[in-house]
Amino acid sequence: MNFTDKLLAASEKNKSLLCVGLDPDPAHMPLSDVLEFNKAIVDATKALVCAYKPNLAFYEALGIPGLVTLQRTIEYIPDSIPIIGDAKRGDVGHSAEAYARALFSVFNFDAITVSPYLGFDSLEPFISYSAKGIFILCRTSNLGSSDFQDLRIDGLPLYMAVAAKAKEWNVHGNVGLVVGATYPKELEKVRSMCPSMHLLIPGVGAQGGDLASAINYGVGIGGGKAIVAVSRQILYASRDADFAEAARSTAKKIRDQINLYLVDSGGVTSD
Amino acid sequence: MNFTDKLLAASEKNKSLLCVGLDPDPAHMPLSDVLEFNKAIVDATKALVCAYKPNLAFYEALGIPGLVTLQRTIEYIPDSIPIIGDAKRGDVGHSAEAYARALFSVFNFDAITVSPYLGFDSLEPFISYSAKGIFILCRTSNLGSSDFQDLRIDGLPLYMAVAAKAKEWNVHGNVGLVVGATYPKELEKVRSMCPSMHLLIPGVGAQGGDLASAINYGVGIGGGKAIVAVSRQILYASRDADFAEAARSTAKKIRDQINLYLVDSGGVTSD
Repeated sequence: MNFTDKLLAASEKNKSLLCVGLDPDPAHMPLSDVLEFNKAIVDATKALVCAYKPNLAFYEALGIPGLVTLQRTIEYIPDSIPIIGDAKRGDVGHSAEAYARALFSVFNFDAITVSPYLGFDSLEPFISYSAKGIFILCRTSNLGSSDFQDLRIDGLPLYMAVAAKAKEWNVHGNVGLVVGATYPKELEKVRSMCPSMHLLIPGVGAQGGDLASAINYGVGIGGGKAIVAVSRQILYASRDADFAEAARSTAKKIRDQINLYLVDSGGVTSD
Repeated sequence: MNFTDKLLAASEKNKSLLCVGLDPDPAHMPLSDVLEFNKAIVDATKALVCAYKPNLAFYEALGIPGLVTLQRTIEYIPDSIPIIGDAKRGDVGHSAEAYARALFSVFNFDAITVSPYLGFDSLEPFISYSAKGIFILCRTSNLGSSDFQDLRIDGLPLYMAVAAKAKEWNVHGNVGLVVGATYPKELEKVRSMCPSMHLLIPGVGAQGGDLASAINYGVGIGGGKAIVAVSRQILYASRDADFAEAARSTAKKIRDQINLYLVDSGGVTSD
């Protein structure tokens, strides 16, 4: 099944636009075994999410065993829930082809994130996997995103130039954008340029983004085009033995809150 | 020893500004064992280079065994030759910290490449490793680099805004830039803005860049501030049993050609 269909099916089944970021940091984990931690989080949240999003940085930081854990985690997640590899890769053509093989064929992600700085020929090797989802970084959730993304080109900020190009490159219908919930005005502008693309929206929770705006501007035409990514707020809801139950409870609270904001928009409704 | 000192020592010892890109692609290799291939290339070229540059894409494409091969390759390269991890990472702060740990502490690279799109707080976790080298993508060697890097901000292209910021962020003296040899005019402009930063210059050889311009504009104040990265032209100089000898011979030819161009600039001289 292609990424978009799998995402919609999981979203409908779980009545959820919540994506849990699987970013295990041993400094904050109540368990020392990363795979056991991930399994417990997946077990606790798999009825509440539309997708999972492991960020490769946290696995690479643990060396080869960390990358084995990433593979085992991917295998453990139910087939019905899509997995977005948060990789933010971007390289020249023949290297981009190698990254695409790594992420789609070796790690078997349903979708990935990529960085736009190198332009079309650095993204095309990913986009050409038409059954996979490609989320291009547009306006990221961090403070430093303004350093370059806000620079004005003919009156329009760079992130809008990226959104315009992404729309043009979306010939297979598999391209989406990453826009942080920490910048609601920018999110609104991107959504108005790209009314029907999926938006991956990090920055709610630990990073302080505004969930109401994320939903209001994120859902797009027909509703449901937002994927709200939350990591630390759920993973480390408790740092004691009850961490999985606390993760479940926090995920449910956020999922339900999203659905309350959605009621008026005609998207997924609350349980 | 910090990256810059190690680079200068290797460059002086081998009279070389040549960096060999260790990007093993099984489709082009005359050996099926990637580690044996890399070892043969290193043995053949280690007296001719100032650095090695493995691109992580090619190892990730081979899965966990590929990443083990990357580690073994890093261990095999003589300690006196610096290793630049061509990773092009770029992520929000806490994820960037995890990538910095992965690249500097786990893989033990002397230097790495990073992507600027996310701004200062995505690069600072790397830059703060003051003994390591950080090469920020500026004007990349590929055709698509013009899609965003050439967009004009107050009359100046984005890549020059990146160069200006990189100069500002270079508080530890460990920041350099990646500028493709395929764009000599842009290389000249970047060099005039940043006269003393190290430039990592890919795009010579298979990508068709101009070596004379790369040296003319690349070397900078005092000479020797260019690192000319060549991969496929050397790795696949022959696809037969004599591949290592062909690699050595091609590497020597490029090293010597660089030194001929350097004679007038007061940098490293030819053997």
